[in-house]
Amino acid sequence: MYSKYCFTLQMQVRDYECDIEGIVNNANYLHYLEHTRHQFILKRGLSFASLHHQGIDVVVARVNIAYKNPLRSEDEFVSCLNFRKEGVKYVFEQDIYRLSDNKIVVKAQVDTVCIVDGKLTDCPELLNLLKE
Amino acid sequence: MYSKYCFTLQMQVRDYECDIEGIVNNANYLHYLEHTRHQFILKRGLSFASLHHQGIDVVVARVNIAYKNPLRSEDEFVSCLNFRKEGVKYVFEQDIYRLSDNKIVVKAQVDTVCIVDGKLTDCPELLNLLKE
Amino acid sequence: MYSKYCFTLQMQVRDYECDIEGIVNNANYLHYLEHTRHQFILKRGLSFASLHHQGIDVVVARVNIAYKNPLRSEDEFVSCLNFRKEGVKYVFEQDIYRLSDNKIVVKAQVDTVCIVDGKLTDCPELLNLLKE
Amino acid sequence: MYSKYCFTLQMQVRDYECDIEGIVNNANYLHYLEHTRHQFILKRGLSFASLHHQGIDVVVARVNIAYKNPLRSEDEFVSCLNFRKEGVKYVFEQDIYRLSDNKIVVKAQVDTVCIVDGKLTDCPELLNLLKE
Repeated sequence: MYSKYCFTLQMQVRDYECDIEGIVNNANYLHYLEHTRHQFILKRGLSFASLHHQGIDVVVARVNIAYKNPLRSEDEFVSCLNFRKEGVKYVFEQDIYRLSDNKIVVKAQVDTVCIVDGKLTDCPELLNLLKE
Repeated sequence: MYSKYCFTLQMQVRDYECDIEGIVNNANYLHYLEHTRHQFILKRGLSFASLHHQGIDVVVARVNIAYKNPLRSEDEFVSCLNFRKEGVKYVFEQDIYRLSDNKIVVKAQVDTVCIVDGKLTDCPELLNLLKE
Repeated sequence: MYSKYCFTLQMQVRDYECDIEGIVNNANYLHYLEHTRHQFILKRGLSFASLHHQGIDVVVARVNIAYKNPLRSEDEFVSCLNFRKEGVKYVFEQDIYRLSDNKIVVKAQVDTVCIVDGKLTDCPELLNLLKE
Repeated sequence: MYSKYCFTLQMQVRDYECDIEGIVNNANYLHYLEHTRHQFILKRGLSFASLHHQGIDVVVARVNIAYKNPLRSEDEFVSCLNFRKEGVKYVFEQDIYRLSDNKIVVKAQVDTVCIVDGKLTDCPELLNLLKE
């Protein structure tokens, strides 16, 4: 089921991420997605922090996220990722599944771009990730 | 400029909302958007918290957000909202502008739905807001 | 080194927890401490969420935290906990160590109390944890 | 009542700051306290962000916070601050009051120190604030 993704990360809900309705607050899924992207490129030997120190800022240009089923206190989940280039954008397809029943939690597409000296540019370091 | 929106809210970046790159973290804009929606319906005499206690959960079903220009430490901004019904969904068009230069910061569409007893349903309380 | 604690939890910094100075924001350590307490009592078969649904709210009454060394992006750390009763309070001694060099990160004491129907009370469920 | 403080800031709870128990999560008060300190020194013409860019990091060394009464959804509150020097430390006495009934919410002492090139040092810029 997870074999169609190039990277997966298992995580668990922390209680402070839930709001009054007892479910994870909608903004916190963007934190999960970001942490998954960062762990993915870290595993490939890169880091957004070190790219930043080299003057390359990889920034989020667009997020399109559909909330399908909520996560609650104590839920474990699997955060999955695929990755492709589309013109100047690096596009991350990111899905999260609840571990207990394998139900889809969120389906998201996250478009990122590279900025050097305030200008949109290409980033050979990220491009290399695609070849692996 | 802001007259085309049915609700606007002025806010200011808090330093803890910024990340290593010195700009507001992408997830925190969803917090800004949520707070704006809640303040909007509060001004109309409703509250998501009290709807929740009546058994009506208004939940976010989809967010489509484009990041245009970043906010930084100390920036003030105006968070603007329009509101319409589309089938079973309540659709919020939400734009944020940087106050210093009126540049667009994010453009977002947030689709919400009402859940009662675990089922998608209509919510007359929200519907009434449209008539005002 | 960690054997003097009754519970330890290994975690890793997530980039969104860091602020402009490149270090984990001071408030986020309270999130780490809370998650550690919740995982500790979960391992003992209890949960703050289920206690809440039974009408027992375990709330934080005081936190005294000393920040010794900062955590940064990608740092792994060990969050350690001891637990005792002191009058009506349940006192958690909580220390966090950086994994790379075993340096102390924060030293904290967190006092919690049990509230039932708005009144300070004792909580036999928590008391039982002490006997194990 | 607030005249004994050298700075006050009125704020309002945002729903995403509340957790499952319906009250503001304990860590978020540290966000309120930080934002109050930053607005205070900003009003005096300084900023922690610009000090950071000059190589002066003002970091939190200790927080001692007592939680007296909880804040809930929609609550407005007044965040108050006094400020003194104690040896090498800059000590902020910070109290938060609920606006509806003037009840104390939290009482906190936050000790900060200045770090230049990794070393504890004095910070004439902060010292000047005391003379005003």
